[in-house]
Amino acid sequence: MKDQRDQNIPYKIYLNENEMPKAWYNVRADMKKKPAPLLNPQTLEPMKFEELRPVFCDELIKQELDDTTAYFEIPQEIRDFYKMFRPSPLIRAYCLEEKLQTPAKIYYKFEGNNTSGSHKLNSAIAQAYYAKKQGLKGITTETGAGQWGTALSMASAYLGLDCQVYMVKCSYEQKPFRREVMRTYGAKVTPSPSDKTEVGRKILQEHPGTSGSLGCAISEAVEAATNQEGYRYVLGSVLNQVLLHQSIIGLECKVALDKYGIKPDMIIGCAGGGSNLGGLISPFLGEMLRGEADYELIAVEPASCPSLTRGKYAYDYCDTGKVCPLSKMYTLGSNFIPSSSHSGGLRYHGMNSVLSEAYDQGLMKAVSVEQTRVFEAAQEFAKVEGILPAPESSHAIRVAIDEALKCKETGEEKTILFGLTGTGYFDMMAYGKFNDGEMSDYIPTDEELEKSFATLPKIEK
Amino acid sequence: MKDQRDQNIPYKIYLNENEMPKAWYNVRADMKKKPAPLLNPQTLEPMKFEELRPVFCDELIKQELDDTTAYFEIPQEIRDFYKMFRPSPLIRAYCLEEKLQTPAKIYYKFEGNNTSGSHKLNSAIAQAYYAKKQGLKGITTETGAGQWGTALSMASAYLGLDCQVYMVKCSYEQKPFRREVMRTYGAKVTPSPSDKTEVGRKILQEHPGTSGSLGCAISEAVEAATNQEGYRYVLGSVLNQVLLHQSIIGLECKVALDKYGIKPDMIIGCAGGGSNLGGLISPFLGEMLRGEADYELIAVEPASCPSLTRGKYAYDYCDTGKVCPLSKMYTLGSNFIPSSSHSGGLRYHGMNSVLSEAYDQGLMKAVSVEQTRVFEAAQEFAKVEGILPAPESSHAIRVAIDEALKCKETGEEKTILFGLTGTGYFDMMAYGKFNDGEMSDYIPTDEELEKSFATLPKIEK
Repeated sequence: MKDQRDQNIPYKIYLNENEMPKAWYNVRADMKKKPAPLLNPQTLEPMKFEELRPVFCDELIKQELDDTTAYFEIPQEIRDFYKMFRPSPLIRAYCLEEKLQTPAKIYYKFEGNNTSGSHKLNSAIAQAYYAKKQGLKGITTETGAGQWGTALSMASAYLGLDCQVYMVKCSYEQKPFRREVMRTYGAKVTPSPSDKTEVGRKILQEHPGTSGSLGCAISEAVEAATNQEGYRYVLGSVLNQVLLHQSIIGLECKVALDKYGIKPDMIIGCAGGGSNLGGLISPFLGEMLRGEADYELIAVEPASCPSLTRGKYAYDYCDTGKVCPLSKMYTLGSNFIPSSSHSGGLRYHGMNSVLSEAYDQGLMKAVSVEQTRVFEAAQEFAKVEGILPAPESSHAIRVAIDEALKCKETGEEKTILFGLTGTGYFDMMAYGKFNDGEMSDYIPTDEELEKSFATLPKIEK
Repeated sequence: MKDQRDQNIPYKIYLNENEMPKAWYNVRADMKKKPAPLLNPQTLEPMKFEELRPVFCDELIKQELDDTTAYFEIPQEIRDFYKMFRPSPLIRAYCLEEKLQTPAKIYYKFEGNNTSGSHKLNSAIAQAYYAKKQGLKGITTETGAGQWGTALSMASAYLGLDCQVYMVKCSYEQKPFRREVMRTYGAKVTPSPSDKTEVGRKILQEHPGTSGSLGCAISEAVEAATNQEGYRYVLGSVLNQVLLHQSIIGLECKVALDKYGIKPDMIIGCAGGGSNLGGLISPFLGEMLRGEADYELIAVEPASCPSLTRGKYAYDYCDTGKVCPLSKMYTLGSNFIPSSSHSGGLRYHGMNSVLSEAYDQGLMKAVSVEQTRVFEAAQEFAKVEGILPAPESSHAIRVAIDEALKCKETGEEKTILFGLTGTGYFDMMAYGKFNDGEMSDYIPTDEELEKSFATLPKIEK
């Protein structure tokens, strides 16, 4: 039974709808040393607006390439959609603190209270909106764990756009119910690699029986977009436009924290392609860049897919089929596929370029964690906080708990903020494995990584 | 794109934590003609406190038998737990209204934003709390669709109680992931009927290959509770104590509606055992009973399990094994098992006695709907409101949409409130059937019902 609660701070801080941010924040505008530009894989010159037009929506390309405009107004239609599931609550983890007996104060921003089950909907509606505004018929995309595909299906259904999703085959098979959610929203879902695209057929020929990868699904979705009149490709992570849209997470956090006079010492987020982490930390990183405040920023990645902690900072292909622009990022090589024992998402081989640059500049730390410890944290959290977290989000929970336990040893009263990106309702096969004691950890060997690094393009920029 | 919104009414109305009700409301206190008492199946006399003690927790029996106390204070510990997922939002269905082009104003109270996925957690924590307070080791229960079992697992994990769940076999098989959620929260889940109990073995012998029923799972859970030292049985619906705890739904609604000066004309809820509907309408029914206001109250049940619309108002067994007290209720007979084509919950043969009495007194209406029309409504709702609803909740959505469309014809600007009890994330097999066009409807024939009515005990009270 809990009773030691701060009477001034509610369990859940909900902003009013009129307190919601009206503009997204583009942290690149405050970076002195900007992230490296996307390169054209043929010319190795920075990608231009016109070159990206066959693949991406016009307005989104502008957002992607703009590293000087600090704020982009959120169109009213998107703000109205946001009201379906935003503002999301900032929750004080009173019960977890009590359970851990830590002097740390733990907060988490919970993005899972919507049918997509994660923060992905923040960018999905923005991307679908601009596609609709451009008069397109439909959009194509890839999805790994399935949250992004679900989010995009929801946004597309709302706006009456056709939505075609290439779903990484192992997720397609492990998560049949995700597929049904997308279908309920009217999306067409194809397991990737498929024989629907040239790149898919090529990959299937070279790697028969492959369980797929995000990089490969991206290639297929891009090809599908360029081959259909009135279609464009959209992506749920990695890109700067996604970080821009996801900044709504951090901006809401900031308003809520300021309202109650709370200043976090440490901000923790899980990192796959970087969409949630980048969105969460953007406004805080902005303060650091402007010299207004200091925070300890921590990216948490799976030990089985350690792009920041063990990757190289280099230009690399964003996709297996090498049809996308080159991006400078921390990467494991575009051929890297995490071990099949790895459950859940966070399986992309690279990292968003803003986060890569911030990490390279020492503005952000990174740690990697093994999945059995992640599921232990998930279960502990679920039992006391009542929310069954997504495996991805549980990476951040693991490190938040570890940091809170360090505070218990040192007696420090640190304020920890972490991002709880989503719920694990469609990850019960992985939980089942964990419940049955059949979950294993896999850490790629140095040799495996070296082999993968060998595929990096030789570009000195 | 939507723009016709009432600027004075937010999309979601969230109460502040300090506006949350501090007491549950017992509508029986305001009923002149009280619901009939539970009867001892041996003596046919009203059940006494002492007789119920071997099965139920002391405090809960007091609440069950008390039909005069109007308000029961909610213990602080339960209110603290409620803060994890309450206050729940009262949502204005702007997007649905726009889609339907109806002059009706539609509101729904959304109880699905918690890991149990439904309103069941409201009573689960209360029942677990009183069990813990009594110093018990654990509790046993049954679950059908699985929400109740999940909710009780969560509450038990939070309080450190052992939790044993008998899950109706067809749900156990159709919803393996529900079982994993319960196991993640540490519960022991057994498909029912099982060979773990005498009554289970008897049912298996008489009906080999049966897919189980709630009535049968109840019998097993009761037997398991009485056979173990320090255990009691708890139930997620049907009982008056459950309606008491669930009154938090209606009470929060009332506060939120009053805050914005909204008066509903019509209140709609799905009805299985009656827990959600009873909780939602209790305070409004109370106003009607006290002559302070008038509302149109509508219970919606599946056409495949029509206890109010086609049942008899009579004393009946609450469970198949006939180990529980007799209750006077609208019932299809305790042997009634809905067709296996029926998806989702709302499959109990009877109805809570307060609701049965209110229905009998003409204070509440009832309609039944077929499941394909229910899933059509669910899909339409999901696409515009962004929430994928539980099949159970979708019964209320169906009728809310039907009523809103009637308003479109007549031009009436009715204010409709309905209960959105939960999410359908664990019902994707049923959605898949619907997506594949393979869902069928089944309405029991008069002959089938007559056969089932023949099993009613002959009691003239």
